[in-house]
Amino acid sequence: MSGTSYGPSGPSYEAAAEALRLLEDRGWSLAVAESLTGGLLAGALTAVPGASRTFRGSVTAYATDLKRDLLGVPGDLLADRGAVDGEVARQMAAGVRWRLGADWGLSTTGVAGPEPQDGQPVGTVFVAAAGPGGQNEQVRLALEGDRDEIRSATVLAALELLQRVVRAAGAPGAVAAQGSGGAAEGDAEALVGDLPGGEHYGAEERSNP
Amino acid sequence: MSGTSYGPSGPSYEAAAEALRLLEDRGWSLAVAESLTGGLLAGALTAVPGASRTFRGSVTAYATDLKRDLLGVPGDLLADRGAVDGEVARQMAAGVRWRLGADWGLSTTGVAGPEPQDGQPVGTVFVAAAGPGGQNEQVRLALEGDRDEIRSATVLAALELLQRVVRAAGAPGAVAAQGSGGAAEGDAEALVGDLPGGEHYGAEERSNP
Repeated sequence: MSGTSYGPSGPSYEAAAEALRLLEDRGWSLAVAESLTGGLLAGALTAVPGASRTFRGSVTAYATDLKRDLLGVPGDLLADRGAVDGEVARQMAAGVRWRLGADWGLSTTGVAGPEPQDGQPVGTVFVAAAGPGGQNEQVRLALEGDRDEIRSATVLAALELLQRVVRAAGAPGAVAAQGSGGAAEGDAEALVGDLPGGEHYGAEERSNP
Repeated sequence: MSGTSYGPSGPSYEAAAEALRLLEDRGWSLAVAESLTGGLLAGALTAVPGASRTFRGSVTAYATDLKRDLLGVPGDLLADRGAVDGEVARQMAAGVRWRLGADWGLSTTGVAGPEPQDGQPVGTVFVAAAGPGGQNEQVRLALEGDRDEIRSATVLAALELLQRVVRAAGAPGAVAAQGSGGAAEGDAEALVGDLPGGEHYGAEERSNP
């Protein structure tokens, strides 16, 4: 295929605009941590005019050591499981939320190809979201297609996950008091430490059609 | 227009592939700091299979405070000139090189629109590159078009700047000794401190056709 648009049209743009609207309605900010999508998730969000009211920024931690040093993913987790892992995705989401002082963190990690990575086949992808109420959900995807198609499908899946968890967190009026100022550092550090057994833990598996 | 491809075709892909090839031939790594392009520059680089051999990662510092806190751009510089400024671009490039431990840093800042920002009109853009020999060049662009066109033209201009400064830094054999391991922290901190009067300082102005 000849590539996917991240400009003002297409499914990623619509999904990004809707996710930003849901966040803004609730007074919440967003930060993004990317691996295989390599900037495209942030790029889809910033294609939307006015994104700066909600989107604070992103970290592309392409090198595995940056997942540890910039996002706070535990080094022993990365050593044990590799970078393509659901718990790594959850830690990336929680870590970028803390590091960038945002209410929500959204992450991607996986294998876009053309080669397998960390013992995982091409198309194995995890997306995760972490929120101000302790939410920290991951979704496992088994994607087919070429490098560009896998990256594009991952962007869309991450945005759909974000929409779902933000809607589930409450209607705009109900969450207004929470959304006043990003994650306090102590709060986020506690969140990172508490992740594995957190009651908001969730995981599901999906394949693309 | 209906959007620009960041997949495996188009001018950004070709420019990214060439920039990565020039770096890899010299044993150099790359990190990216983005503002108005919001992830698309990193996305163009990671569209290229094998990018992980050279590209370490990126920071999208969309919120101005992240340019200070994550990239080390001096707060008084941001307060004096705003985020859309050539010196800010140079500090972003030097800062991400240091923060991500890469040989080269490449940055973008500017106004994609639809609204003016920090007193600068839509289309005012700065790209900059910082390298292991003290290089720290910026280019000012005056771009026309819509938000998507301005962001796409900025990605291309940044990649062309990187190609030029890497070529100017020397042929592969001549620089092999320099490219052995990323920026040492002390080295990069000295570089950030030395920027304004450095002998490698360079600036030029360009408009898109």
